Amino acid sequence: MSDTQTLSRKADFPGLVTEDGAVWHYLDTAATSQKPQAVIDAMANALGKDYATVHRGVYGRSAQMTLGYEAARRRVAAFLGGREEEIVFTRGATEAINLVAQSWGVANLKAGDRILLSMLEHHSNIVPWQMLRERIGIEIDVCPLTEEGCIDLDAAEQMVTSEHRLVAFSHISNVLGSTLDARRAADIAHGVGARLLLDGCQSAPRMAIDVSALDCDFYVFSGHKLYGPTGIGALWARHDILSAMPPWQGGGAMIDRVSFARTTWADAPQRFEAGTPAITEAIALTAAIDYVEAVGVGCICRHEAALVQQARDALRSVNAVRLFGPENSAGIVSFELEGVHPHDLGTILDEENVAIRAGHHCAQPLMQYLGVPATARASFGLYSDEDDVTALIRGIERTLRIFG
Amino acid sequence: MSDTQTLSRKADFPGLVTEDGAVWHYLDTAATSQKPQAVIDAMANALGKDYATVHRGVYGRSAQMTLGYEAARRRVAAFLGGREEEIVFTRGATEAINLVAQSWGVANLKAGDRILLSMLEHHSNIVPWQMLRERIGIEIDVCPLTEEGCIDLDAAEQMVTSEHRLVAFSHISNVLGSTLDARRAADIAHGVGARLLLDGCQSAPRMAIDVSALDCDFYVFSGHKLYGPTGIGALWARHDILSAMPPWQGGGAMIDRVSFARTTWADAPQRFEAGTPAITEAIALTAAIDYVEAVGVGCICRHEAALVQQARDALRSVNAVRLFGPENSAGIVSFELEGVHPHDLGTILDEENVAIRAGHHCAQPLMQYLGVPATARASFGLYSDEDDVTALIRGIERTLRIFG
Repeated sequence: MSDTQTLSRKADFPGLVTEDGAVWHYLDTAATSQKPQAVIDAMANALGKDYATVHRGVYGRSAQMTLGYEAARRRVAAFLGGREEEIVFTRGATEAINLVAQSWGVANLKAGDRILLSMLEHHSNIVPWQMLRERIGIEIDVCPLTEEGCIDLDAAEQMVTSEHRLVAFSHISNVLGSTLDARRAADIAHGVGARLLLDGCQSAPRMAIDVSALDCDFYVFSGHKLYGPTGIGALWARHDILSAMPPWQGGGAMIDRVSFARTTWADAPQRFEAGTPAITEAIALTAAIDYVEAVGVGCICRHEAALVQQARDALRSVNAVRLFGPENSAGIVSFELEGVHPHDLGTILDEENVAIRAGHHCAQPLMQYLGVPATARASFGLYSDEDDVTALIRGIERTLRIFG
Repeated sequence: MSDTQTLSRKADFPGLVTEDGAVWHYLDTAATSQKPQAVIDAMANALGKDYATVHRGVYGRSAQMTLGYEAARRRVAAFLGGREEEIVFTRGATEAINLVAQSWGVANLKAGDRILLSMLEHHSNIVPWQMLRERIGIEIDVCPLTEEGCIDLDAAEQMVTSEHRLVAFSHISNVLGSTLDARRAADIAHGVGARLLLDGCQSAPRMAIDVSALDCDFYVFSGHKLYGPTGIGALWARHDILSAMPPWQGGGAMIDRVSFARTTWADAPQRFEAGTPAITEAIALTAAIDYVEAVGVGCICRHEAALVQQARDALRSVNAVRLFGPENSAGIVSFELEGVHPHDLGTILDEENVAIRAGHHCAQPLMQYLGVPATARASFGLYSDEDDVTALIRGIERTLRIFG
């Protein structure tokens, strides 16, 4: 990627400028990504000159909007290597996992059944299962991590039993950037007759996804982390699984016939989209996927890998830094600065127009495992560049001078 | 409202123009409203130069975005006459009712308990309760309608018993435009110790709401019907009720502490907003409420009442028309044209740039009650004007010539 290309990408993102017109060194893309102008324009058009509801209108513009909404579903399906009837639009990955827990989980699990999570999961892939445990009495096992911070699949292989009905793992850790060997996880899960759910929040924006090749059963992601709008995300589920799942939320559009005596359901995926959906968000998500694919997922992957290498090398050269996660962490670098609380670091960096995340990253069990209350985290996107890393290091050095 | 004012309002809505630049006579506002440019601009700014996540960032822009998101909650609370800690953001009214059913319902109802709905409810206020019936064995009673299409509160008064735990009624019917005497409904519900839920989808955009004066316990609405974006809506619930409700969806942001052994919850309303919320949608909803209040809810109400009167009078003069709902229907006029299926009418009107809804309006039980498979429905918004009604009548006359 040449400098020119990098520059032109920054220019596509109106969020990457401070109020004063300076460059904003935004290193919190793992929390949420900035949006290219194309996504903002798609949203504005969908809310403006193109606006109408979907699925119900007999007039032309509503038919057009329905085509756009269903095209978004096909676009997401193609992006993930799935089929359009396997895509359910949700508010985001969190709602998608709750849908799996409360629909598939309640219908398919019973007291005593076990599920396997890992020590590095985001709260969104822990709490829904704890709520299911509360409701129906399943048991939760927790897979440990390897020394470098990957989910330990050797351990997972030992832990799974015929009582396990689900393995639910993060595809890329939002704290450590460690990437799961998803195919091996699928083999381990399927070897005991369990399903595999992948939390793809961090993988969808930074690696090529093919759910067939991964051989998973559920895959979830959030649009706002994939350069798209808030309020939209998706669940992909294998069609035979999805079509057998009972509805979770009731309302308009998810029904076949309604009478007070008896209501029948629409087929999947419609059955899981009660009420007016996030129409304009789905259409803007299409624009985000178009943008990502025009840049090229492989290109994004290599670009972020180079930035991670630069950042880790530079951080290693700072004496007081402890690095977390594997050397080849995917787009995400977590660290702590000896003697400086991550929040203080974040606050001082903010004065230099550098935005990092400081905290537990919605992964409190992992923090406990790492023996820290919080970490500092720099995370990259397709618009990040070497200057962002340089600004981060400069800010850290200034912080050390202040605290020294 | 002078013609000038009306014209200036149409100009605020980029959706009210056809591809060819002609006026689009949009009479489907009860399905979803068009958005003023101020809402589209608020969305574009929130996705662009102002964009960051909420609640977690240590940098300034995230703190700003959090202020904006929480200001949206206060704005919605003030609009409804409630308190900010009583507002939960949801995808829309449908999700809000599902939240009440699956959180409050599961925690507070048991097999044999009864709830009272009405014959004119939207599917979103029927199906969630049927799913709850399936899950825990409650019973559903259905209040009949008066001759003119209002929920018959005399009948409701006779029907409620000490076994009733909830009365859930539409505040304004999305088909008939009939307005509930909500205060009397509250007295009837509370008289037997039941709660009152109001489906405010059609009332929030067209009448002043004060949940204290209405004396309801739950009130729900959708942003996209209130001139705001898709993907956002709200549940208002009385604080003592909301704060006692268990969480429904698990994930980030709704927790206090997470460990695999035991997780504790945040207070309401945070407890009900798992994951990254619809941030930019909440902010754009604020702009919608600002717009509505600048026009004035009372003004919108009088404006729509005048248009309804004009439409009903003109429709009555067409021999083949049968009108549904009360004479003073709120912003909504449902009718059928003898010998013409509503879908055919809708299609022909579309050729004249008139958009109406034709169908069951997500109220199949009401269609059965009325003895029709579908109705045609014209519904108004603050941007509608006399020309829209004239175009509708002209289109109906042309349709009759075609079918005659």
